[in-house]
Amino acid sequence: MTAPPLAHLINELTKLPGLGGKSAARLAYHLLKRPTADVEALASAILDVKSKIFRCSICNNMTDVEPCVICSDTRRDPTVICVVEEAFNIPTIETTRDFRGVFHVLLGALSPLKGVGPQDIDVAGLVRRVQAGQIREVIVATNPNVEGEATALYIAQQLRPLEVRTTRLGFGLPVGGDLEYADQVTMSKALESRREI
Amino acid sequence: MTAPPLAHLINELTKLPGLGGKSAARLAYHLLKRPTADVEALASAILDVKSKIFRCSICNNMTDVEPCVICSDTRRDPTVICVVEEAFNIPTIETTRDFRGVFHVLLGALSPLKGVGPQDIDVAGLVRRVQAGQIREVIVATNPNVEGEATALYIAQQLRPLEVRTTRLGFGLPVGGDLEYADQVTMSKALESRREI
Repeated sequence: MTAPPLAHLINELTKLPGLGGKSAARLAYHLLKRPTADVEALASAILDVKSKIFRCSICNNMTDVEPCVICSDTRRDPTVICVVEEAFNIPTIETTRDFRGVFHVLLGALSPLKGVGPQDIDVAGLVRRVQAGQIREVIVATNPNVEGEATALYIAQQLRPLEVRTTRLGFGLPVGGDLEYADQVTMSKALESRREI
Repeated sequence: MTAPPLAHLINELTKLPGLGGKSAARLAYHLLKRPTADVEALASAILDVKSKIFRCSICNNMTDVEPCVICSDTRRDPTVICVVEEAFNIPTIETTRDFRGVFHVLLGALSPLKGVGPQDIDVAGLVRRVQAGQIREVIVATNPNVEGEATALYIAQQLRPLEVRTTRLGFGLPVGGDLEYADQVTMSKALESRREI
Protein backbone atom coordinates (compact mmCIF):
# COMPACT_ATOMS: atom_id res chain seq x y z
CA MET A 1 0.00 0.00 0.00
CA THR A 2 3.02 2.27 0.50
CA ALA A 3 4.06 4.00 -2.76
CA PRO A 4 7.10 2.22 -4.29
CA PRO A 5 9.63 5.12 -4.09
CA LEU A 6 8.70 5.58 -0.43
CA ALA A 7 8.84 1.83 0.30
CA HIS A 8 12.24 1.76 -1.43
CA LEU A 9 13.61 4.57 0.75
CA ILE A 10 12.26 2.91 3.91
CA ASN A 11 13.96 -0.30 2.83
CA GLU A 12 17.29 1.49 2.23
CA LEU A 13 17.01 3.16 5.64
CA THR A 14 16.35 -0.11 7.50
CA LYS A 15 19.79 -1.29 6.30
CA LEU A 16 21.35 1.31 8.60
CA PRO A 17 22.39 0.31 12.13
CA GLY A 18 19.87 1.03 14.87
CA LEU A 19 17.00 1.75 12.48
CA GLY A 20 14.10 -0.69 12.63
CA GLY A 21 11.11 -0.60 10.30
CA LYS A 22 9.22 1.96 12.37
CA SER A 23 12.08 4.45 12.80
CA ALA A 24 12.95 4.10 9.11
CA ALA A 25 9.34 4.86 8.12
CA ARG A 26 9.28 7.82 10.50
CA LEU A 27 12.48 9.20 8.94
CA ALA A 28 11.20 8.71 5.39
CA TYR A 29 7.91 10.50 6.07
CA HIS A 30 9.84 13.26 7.83
CA LEU A 31 12.03 13.78 4.75
CA LEU A 32 8.89 14.07 2.59
CA LYS A 33 7.72 16.98 4.73
CA ARG A 34 11.05 18.85 4.59
CA PRO A 35 11.88 21.46 1.91
CA THR A 36 13.57 19.96 -1.17
CA ALA A 37 16.76 21.98 -0.48
CA ASP A 38 17.18 20.38 2.96
CA VAL A 39 16.70 16.89 1.55
CA GLU A 40 19.20 17.56 -1.25
CA ALA A 41 21.67 18.86 1.35
CA LEU A 42 21.39 15.54 3.21
CA ALA A 43 21.81 13.46 0.04
CA SER A 44 24.86 15.46 -1.05
CA ALA A 45 26.41 15.27 2.44
CA ILE A 46 26.07 11.48 2.21
CA LEU A 47 27.75 11.36 -1.22
CA ASP A 48 30.44 13.88 -0.19
CA VAL A 49 31.53 11.97 2.84
CA LYS A 50 32.03 8.86 0.74
CA SER A 51 34.11 10.64 -1.92
CA LYS A 52 36.22 12.88 0.34
CA ILE A 53 36.93 10.76 3.40
CA PHE A 54 39.63 8.07 3.54
CA ARG A 55 41.77 6.38 6.20
CA CYS A 56 44.88 8.11 7.60
CA SER A 57 47.92 6.08 6.47
CA ILE A 58 49.46 6.34 9.95
CA CYS A 59 46.59 5.66 12.37
CA ASN A 60 43.60 4.50 10.21
CA ASN A 61 41.45 7.40 11.47
CA MET A 62 38.79 8.72 9.05
CA THR A 63 40.21 11.88 7.47
CA ASP A 64 40.03 14.26 4.52
CA VAL A 65 43.73 15.18 4.74
CA GLU A 66 46.82 12.94 4.79
CA PRO A 67 48.02 12.43 7.49
CA CYS A 68 44.96 13.15 9.65
CA VAL A 69 44.75 16.30 11.79
CA ILE A 70 45.57 14.33 14.95
CA CYS A 71 48.71 12.67 13.53
CA SER A 72 49.92 16.00 12.07
CA ASP A 73 49.21 18.06 15.21
CA THR A 74 52.65 19.02 16.59
CA ARG A 75 51.16 19.98 19.98
CA ARG A 76 50.23 16.33 20.55
CA ASP A 77 52.56 13.75 22.09
CA PRO A 78 53.41 11.15 19.40
CA THR A 79 55.04 8.87 22.00
CA VAL A 80 51.72 7.81 23.56
CA ILE A 81 49.37 5.77 21.35
CA CYS A 82 45.77 5.10 22.33
CA VAL A 83 44.46 1.97 20.56
CA VAL A 84 40.75 1.90 19.67
CA GLU A 85 38.60 -0.54 17.71
CA GLU A 86 36.92 1.95 15.39
CA ALA A 87 37.47 5.53 14.20
CA PHE A 88 34.22 6.61 15.86
CA ASN A 89 35.72 5.75 19.26
CA ILE A 90 38.19 8.64 18.83
CA PRO A 91 35.67 11.49 19.42
CA THR A 92 34.53 9.75 22.65
CA ILE A 93 38.06 9.89 24.02
CA GLU A 94 38.75 13.37 22.58
CA THR A 95 35.76 14.87 24.42
CA THR A 96 37.48 14.17 27.76
CA ARG A 97 40.36 16.52 26.75
CA ASP A 98 42.51 14.35 29.05
CA PHE A 99 44.42 12.59 26.30
CA ARG A 100 47.02 14.49 24.28
CA GLY A 101 48.71 11.57 22.54
CA VAL A 102 47.91 9.99 19.18
CA PHE A 103 45.64 7.12 18.13
CA HIS A 104 45.74 3.78 16.37
CA VAL A 105 42.50 2.40 14.93
CA LEU A 106 42.40 -1.41 14.75
CA LEU A 107 39.41 -1.50 12.36
CA GLY A 108 37.68 -4.14 14.47
CA ALA A 109 38.15 -6.52 17.38
CA LEU A 110 39.05 -10.20 17.59
CA SER A 111 35.93 -12.35 17.45
CA PRO A 112 36.21 -16.07 16.68
CA LEU A 113 32.39 -16.23 16.56
CA LYS A 114 32.23 -13.61 13.80
CA GLY A 115 35.31 -15.07 12.11
CA VAL A 116 37.49 -12.03 12.87
CA GLY A 117 41.08 -13.19 13.45
CA PRO A 118 44.36 -11.31 14.08
CA GLN A 119 44.95 -10.89 10.33
CA ASP A 120 41.62 -9.05 9.96
CA ILE A 121 42.50 -6.19 12.34
CA ASP A 122 45.48 -3.85 12.13
CA VAL A 123 47.64 -4.97 15.06
CA ALA A 124 50.58 -5.35 12.63
CA GLY A 125 50.45 -1.60 11.91
CA LEU A 126 50.56 -0.86 15.64
CA VAL A 127 53.55 -3.19 16.12
CA ARG A 128 55.35 -1.43 13.24
CA ARG A 129 54.70 1.98 14.82
CA VAL A 130 56.10 0.76 18.16
CA GLN A 131 59.11 -0.86 16.44
CA ALA A 132 59.83 2.43 14.64
CA GLY A 133 60.69 3.67 18.13
CA GLN A 134 60.11 6.52 20.56
CA ILE A 135 56.82 5.10 21.87
CA ARG A 136 56.56 5.43 25.66
CA GLU A 137 53.13 3.95 26.21
CA VAL A 138 50.34 2.10 24.41
CA ILE A 139 46.92 2.60 26.05
CA VAL A 140 44.52 -0.13 24.93
CA ALA A 141 41.03 1.40 24.77
CA THR A 142 39.17 -1.47 23.11
CA ASN A 143 35.54 -2.02 24.21
CA PRO A 144 34.84 -3.37 27.72
CA ASN A 145 33.37 -6.61 26.36
CA VAL A 146 34.57 -10.13 25.49
CA GLU A 147 35.89 -9.16 22.02
CA GLY A 148 37.57 -6.01 23.33
CA GLU A 149 39.21 -7.91 26.18
CA ALA A 150 40.47 -10.68 23.89
CA THR A 151 41.88 -8.03 21.54
CA ALA A 152 43.57 -6.21 24.44
CA LEU A 153 45.24 -9.44 25.60
CA TYR A 154 46.39 -10.23 22.05
CA ILE A 155 47.89 -6.73 21.68
CA ALA A 156 49.66 -7.04 25.03
CA GLN A 157 51.16 -10.36 23.85
CA GLN A 158 52.34 -8.89 20.56
CA LEU A 159 53.93 -5.86 22.27
CA ARG A 160 55.66 -7.78 25.08
CA PRO A 161 58.92 -8.43 23.09
CA LEU A 162 59.10 -4.69 22.30
CA GLU A 163 59.18 -3.75 25.99
CA VAL A 164 56.81 -0.80 25.68
CA ARG A 165 54.54 0.13 28.59
CA THR A 166 51.09 -1.27 27.69
CA THR A 167 48.03 -0.25 29.72
CA ARG A 168 44.28 -0.92 29.62
CA LEU A 169 41.47 1.53 30.45
CA GLY A 170 40.21 1.21 34.05
CA PHE A 171 37.04 -0.74 34.83
CA GLY A 172 34.53 0.09 37.54
CA LEU A 173 31.26 1.81 38.28
CA PRO A 174 30.09 4.32 35.68
CA VAL A 175 29.99 7.79 37.23
CA GLY A 176 26.48 9.14 37.84
CA GLY A 177 24.83 5.74 37.98
CA ASP A 178 23.14 4.07 40.94
CA LEU A 179 24.90 1.18 42.64
CA GLU A 180 21.80 -1.00 42.36
CA TYR A 181 21.91 -0.86 38.55
CA ALA A 182 25.51 -2.11 38.31
CA ASP A 183 25.73 -5.61 36.86
CA GLN A 184 27.64 -8.37 38.62
CA VAL A 185 30.75 -8.22 36.44
CA THR A 186 31.06 -4.42 36.70
CA MET A 187 30.60 -4.68 40.48
CA SER A 188 33.36 -7.31 40.69
CA LYS A 189 35.65 -5.05 38.65
CA ALA A 190 34.78 -2.08 40.87
CA LEU A 191 35.68 -4.05 44.00
CA GLU A 192 38.86 -5.32 42.40
CA SER A 193 39.98 -1.83 41.39
CA ARG A 194 39.06 -0.17 44.73
CA ARG A 195 41.38 2.54 46.02
CA GLU A 196 42.29 4.21 49.33
CA ILE A 197 40.40 7.44 49.96
CA MET B 1 39.09 16.88 15.18
CA THR B 2 36.43 15.23 12.99
CA ALA B 3 37.12 15.79 9.27
CA PRO B 4 34.80 18.55 7.90
CA PRO B 5 32.82 16.44 5.34
CA LEU B 6 32.17 13.89 8.09
CA ALA B 7 31.23 16.55 10.65
CA HIS B 8 28.89 18.07 8.03
CA LEU B 9 27.12 14.74 7.42
CA ILE B 10 26.77 14.13 11.18
CA ASN B 11 25.26 17.61 11.49
CA GLU B 12 22.78 16.94 8.65
CA LEU B 13 21.81 13.63 10.25
CA THR B 14 21.16 15.19 13.68
CA LYS B 15 18.42 17.30 12.03
CA LEU B 16 16.40 14.09 11.55
CA PRO B 17 13.84 13.08 14.19
CA GLY B 18 15.04 10.62 16.81
CA LEU B 19 18.71 10.96 15.90
CA GLY B 20 20.92 12.46 18.60
CA GLY B 21 24.60 13.26 18.18
CA LYS B 22 25.77 9.75 19.02
CA SER B 23 23.36 7.88 16.72
CA ALA B 24 24.11 10.36 13.92
CA ALA B 25 27.86 9.77 14.31
CA ARG B 26 27.30 6.02 14.39
CA LEU B 27 25.29 6.22 11.13
CA ALA B 28 27.88 8.43 9.41
CA TYR B 29 30.77 6.11 10.29
CA HIS B 30 28.67 3.15 9.19
CA LEU B 31 28.10 4.76 5.76
CA LEU B 32 31.86 5.28 5.39
CA LYS B 33 32.38 1.54 5.78
CA ARG B 34 29.73 0.57 3.20
CA PRO B 35 30.50 0.06 -0.51
CA THR B 36 30.07 3.25 -2.58
CA ALA B 37 27.22 1.66 -4.58
CA ASP B 38 25.17 1.11 -1.39
CA VAL B 39 25.70 4.67 -0.24
CA GLU B 40 24.75 6.04 -3.66
CA ALA B 41 21.61 3.88 -3.58
CA LEU B 42 20.62 5.50 -0.28
CA ALA B 43 21.30 9.04 -1.54
CA SER B 44 19.31 8.44 -4.73
CA ALA B 45 16.42 6.84 -2.80
CA ILE B 46 16.29 10.02 -0.69
CA LEU B 47 16.22 12.27 -3.77
CA ASP B 48 13.74 10.00 -5.59
CA VAL B 49 11.21 10.01 -2.82
CA LYS B 50 11.21 13.80 -2.79
CA SER B 51 10.71 14.11 -6.56
CA LYS B 52 8.21 11.27 -7.11
CA ILE B 53 5.96 11.38 -4.06
CA PHE B 54 3.09 13.82 -3.61
CA ARG B 55 -0.21 13.95 -1.72
CA CYS B 56 -3.32 12.15 -3.00
CA SER B 57 -5.89 14.81 -3.98
CA ILE B 58 -8.67 12.82 -2.30
CA CYS B 59 -7.21 11.66 1.03
CA ASN B 60 -3.82 13.46 1.40
CA ASN B 61 -1.97 10.11 1.62
CA MET B 62 1.60 10.09 0.30
CA THR B 63 1.50 8.56 -3.18
CA ASP B 64 3.26 8.27 -6.54
CA VAL B 65 -0.01 7.84 -8.48
CA GLU B 66 -3.14 10.01 -8.51
CA PRO B 67 -5.43 9.08 -6.81
CA CYS B 68 -3.48 6.88 -4.37
CA VAL B 69 -3.70 3.07 -4.50
CA ILE B 70 -6.05 3.00 -1.51
CA CYS B 71 -8.54 5.55 -2.96
CA SER B 72 -8.50 3.81 -6.35
CA ASP B 73 -8.85 0.25 -4.95
CA THR B 74 -12.35 -0.87 -5.99
CA ARG B 75 -12.29 -3.75 -3.46
CA ARG B 76 -12.26 -1.22 -0.62
CA ASP B 77 -15.39 0.29 0.91
CA PRO B 78 -15.45 4.05 0.06
CA THR B 79 -18.33 4.65 2.49
CA VAL B 80 -16.17 4.23 5.62
CA ILE B 81 -13.46 6.84 6.19
CA CYS B 82 -10.73 6.41 8.81
CA VAL B 83 -9.31 9.81 9.83
CA VAL B 84 -5.62 9.91 10.82
CA GLU B 85 -3.27 12.76 11.69
CA GLU B 86 -0.41 11.81 9.39
CA ALA B 87 0.15 9.63 6.31
CA PHE B 88 2.53 7.42 8.31
CA ASN B 89 -0.38 6.38 10.55
CA ILE B 90 -1.95 4.56 7.58
CA PRO B 91 0.49 1.60 7.51
CA THR B 92 -0.10 1.06 11.26
CA ILE B 93 -3.81 0.61 10.64
CA GLU B 94 -3.30 -1.33 7.41
CA THR B 95 -1.16 -3.97 9.17
CA THR B 96 -4.21 -5.06 11.20
CA ARG B 97 -6.00 -6.07 7.94
CA ASP B 98 -9.21 -5.33 9.85
CA PHE B 99 -10.04 -2.11 8.05
CA ARG B 100 -11.23 -2.21 4.45
CA GLY B 101 -12.46 1.38 4.09
CA VAL B 102 -10.56 4.45 2.91
CA PHE B 103 -8.55 7.12 4.73
CA HIS B 104 -8.43 10.84 5.30
CA VAL B 105 -5.13 12.40 6.41
CA LEU B 106 -5.56 15.60 8.44
CA LEU B 107 -1.91 16.66 8.06
CA GLY B 108 -1.65 17.42 11.77
CA ALA B 109 -3.65 17.77 14.97
CA LEU B 110 -5.11 20.78 16.77
CA SER B 111 -2.60 22.24 19.19
CA PRO B 112 -3.11 25.75 20.59
CA LEU B 113 0.34 25.47 22.23
CA LYS B 114 2.04 24.87 18.88
CA GLY B 115 -0.22 27.39 17.16
CA VAL B 116 -2.04 24.76 15.08
CA GLY B 117 -5.68 25.79 14.60
CA PRO B 118 -8.60 24.31 12.59
CA GLN B 119 -7.48 26.16 9.43
CA ASP B 120 -4.06 24.43 9.58
CA ILE B 121 -5.40 20.88 9.32
CA ASP B 122 -7.61 19.44 6.60
CA VAL B 123 -10.95 18.97 8.38
CA ALA B 124 -12.63 21.01 5.61
CA GLY B 125 -11.62 18.34 3.06
CA LEU B 126 -13.17 15.65 5.27
CA VAL B 127 -16.41 17.64 5.62
CA ARG B 128 -16.54 18.04 1.80
CA ARG B 129 -16.09 14.29 1.33
CA VAL B 130 -18.92 13.56 3.78
CA GLN B 131 -21.14 16.23 2.16
CA ALA B 132 -20.54 14.64 -1.25
CA GLY B 133 -22.58 11.76 0.19
CA GLN B 134 -22.64 7.98 0.61
CA ILE B 135 -20.44 8.03 3.73
CA ARG B 136 -21.77 5.59 6.35
CA GLU B 137 -19.14 6.07 9.05
CA VAL B 138 -16.17 8.24 9.98
CA ILE B 139 -13.71 6.50 12.33
CA VAL B 140 -11.53 9.07 14.08
CA ALA B 141 -8.09 7.49 14.61
CA THR B 142 -6.18 10.55 15.82
CA ASN B 143 -3.48 9.95 18.46
CA PRO B 144 -4.54 8.98 22.01
CA ASN B 145 -3.16 12.22 23.48
CA VAL B 146 -4.41 15.74 24.28
CA GLU B 147 -3.99 17.06 20.73
CA GLY B 148 -5.55 13.95 19.19
CA GLU B 149 -8.52 14.11 21.57
CA ALA B 150 -9.12 17.80 20.91
CA THR B 151 -8.97 17.13 17.17
CA ALA B 152 -11.42 14.22 17.50
CA LEU B 153 -13.90 16.42 19.40
CA TYR B 154 -13.58 19.20 16.81
CA ILE B 155 -14.20 16.73 13.97
CA ALA B 156 -17.26 15.31 15.77
CA GLN B 157 -18.60 18.87 16.13
CA GLN B 158 -18.06 19.66 12.45
CA LEU B 159 -19.70 16.42 11.32
CA ARG B 160 -22.75 16.62 13.64
CA PRO B 161 -24.93 18.65 11.18
CA LEU B 162 -24.19 16.07 8.47
CA GLU B 163 -25.63 13.24 10.58
CA VAL B 164 -22.96 10.71 9.73
CA ARG B 165 -21.99 8.02 12.25
CA THR B 166 -18.75 9.26 13.86
CA THR B 167 -16.70 6.89 16.05
CA ARG B 168 -13.41 7.07 17.96
CA LEU B 169 -10.85 4.25 18.43
CA GLY B 170 -11.29 2.35 21.71
CA PHE B 171 -9.08 3.14 24.72
CA GLY B 172 -7.84 0.66 27.29
CA LEU B 173 -4.95 -1.55 28.28
CA PRO B 174 -2.45 -2.29 25.52
CA VAL B 175 -2.46 -6.03 24.78
CA GLY B 176 0.62 -7.90 25.98
CA GLY B 177 1.53 -5.37 28.66
CA ASP B 178 1.59 -5.85 32.42
CA LEU B 179 -1.14 -4.22 34.49
CA GLU B 180 1.43 -2.63 36.80
CA TYR B 181 2.92 -0.63 33.93
CA ALA B 182 -0.39 0.97 32.92
CA ASP B 183 -0.53 4.68 33.70
CA GLN B 184 -3.38 6.18 35.67
CA VAL B 185 -5.25 7.64 32.69
CA THR B 186 -5.06 4.41 30.67
CA MET B 187 -6.23 2.48 33.72
CA SER B 188 -9.22 4.85 34.14
CA LYS B 189 -10.08 4.40 30.46
CA ALA B 190 -9.76 0.62 30.81
CA LEU B 191 -12.18 0.62 33.77
CA GLU B 192 -14.56 2.94 31.95
CA SER B 193 -14.63 0.74 28.83
CA ARG B 194 -14.94 -2.57 30.74
CA ARG B 195 -17.15 -5.25 29.20
CA GLU B 196 -19.06 -8.34 30.30
CA ILE B 197 -17.16 -11.60 29.78
